[in-house]
Amino acid sequence: MAAVAGVTTRRSRLTPEREAELYEAVLDLLREVGYEALTMDAVASRTRSSKATLYRQWGSKPELVVMALRHHKPISTADVDTGSLRGDFHALVGRQDDCRMAEDAALMRGIAMEMKSNPDLHRAFRELLIEPEITGLGQVLRRAVERGEVEADRPALDFVVHMMVGAYVARQMIDGASVDRDFLLRYLDAVVLPALGA
Amino acid sequence: MAAVAGVTTRRSRLTPEREAELYEAVLDLLREVGYEALTMDAVASRTRSSKATLYRQWGSKPELVVMALRHHKPISTADVDTGSLRGDFHALVGRQDDCRMAEDAALMRGIAMEMKSNPDLHRAFRELLIEPEITGLGQVLRRAVERGEVEADRPALDFVVHMMVGAYVARQMIDGASVDRDFLLRYLDAVVLPALGA
Repeated sequence: MAAVAGVTTRRSRLTPEREAELYEAVLDLLREVGYEALTMDAVASRTRSSKATLYRQWGSKPELVVMALRHHKPISTADVDTGSLRGDFHALVGRQDDCRMAEDAALMRGIAMEMKSNPDLHRAFRELLIEPEITGLGQVLRRAVERGEVEADRPALDFVVHMMVGAYVARQMIDGASVDRDFLLRYLDAVVLPALGA
Repeated sequence: MAAVAGVTTRRSRLTPEREAELYEAVLDLLREVGYEALTMDAVASRTRSSKATLYRQWGSKPELVVMALRHHKPISTADVDTGSLRGDFHALVGRQDDCRMAEDAALMRGIAMEMKSNPDLHRAFRELLIEPEITGLGQVLRRAVERGEVEADRPALDFVVHMMVGAYVARQMIDGASVDRDFLLRYLDAVVLPALGA
């Protein structure tokens, strides 16, 4: 905290802990009020730092938000390998907690509006929240194809991430409820696995 | 226009044309900047009316937005009946134009953030954009079940609207492109019909 309060030198370094704290506050605000309504004032006030510090360290709101997203650790899919596609999907869902899922859904809503008009934000969102999902799911799906569970040219293979994002976003829109493990497991069994013919 | 400019009487009536014009401007602003950033000032300026008029007629921003959504006519699905589920789906997509689809996707993004914290907006969105889809799709699906194309207890029947909303929202999020007819037709054939076992 001392590194931030009353800064007089340019480019003062924040401790990694303090930086993480700031990024968490930015993500919390994104979930609560969305990108548009997130102000540097609100970040400064919530983190008890000065606006001058924020601007000195990150230059602008888009940069700060992109760095906060970059800091957000996606859940690793690398070591899931149960021997069946359904087992892998259920293991992936099983290791997420409901709270984290609701947070990620809130994050998607918080920046959804901005993505079309803000290419940097869209790129950061893609790289940090979507690409890891694509990579992780890609491994799971590749093994399913190798085992002969899914045909290699099954058209639904191109839309697995679309189906999953749909589950996250539509749950709130249609049912007015947060996505949770129970919903995702039902959706996987009812939609994703049958679409893949598995 | 005369009914709006320089209003001195309370509860002056707008002509239906002028009201429609105001609602269209509100929907355009929702798509462009989202609910949070939409101000009564911006509505007044774009429609060349006074803020006093807007407040007198609608009371508040949430009411104005809800009425504008209510004015938004969903595409009717009532008279689609081609004799097959795939035929019906393709007919439904075929009668939408790409521009309208992109507008609806923008509208979903524009109010997605607000829906959790604003129950009135969520209710209006559900009643005006989602329920008609559910009703229309319900008829199409019921006939498919009656024809024996889809089993009556097929689990995916509960998630058809989720899959479709997913297609609209995820197209922009993942591919950075607007949803269009070509994408929706591929998605229907790759995901929705196989999930329904049709």
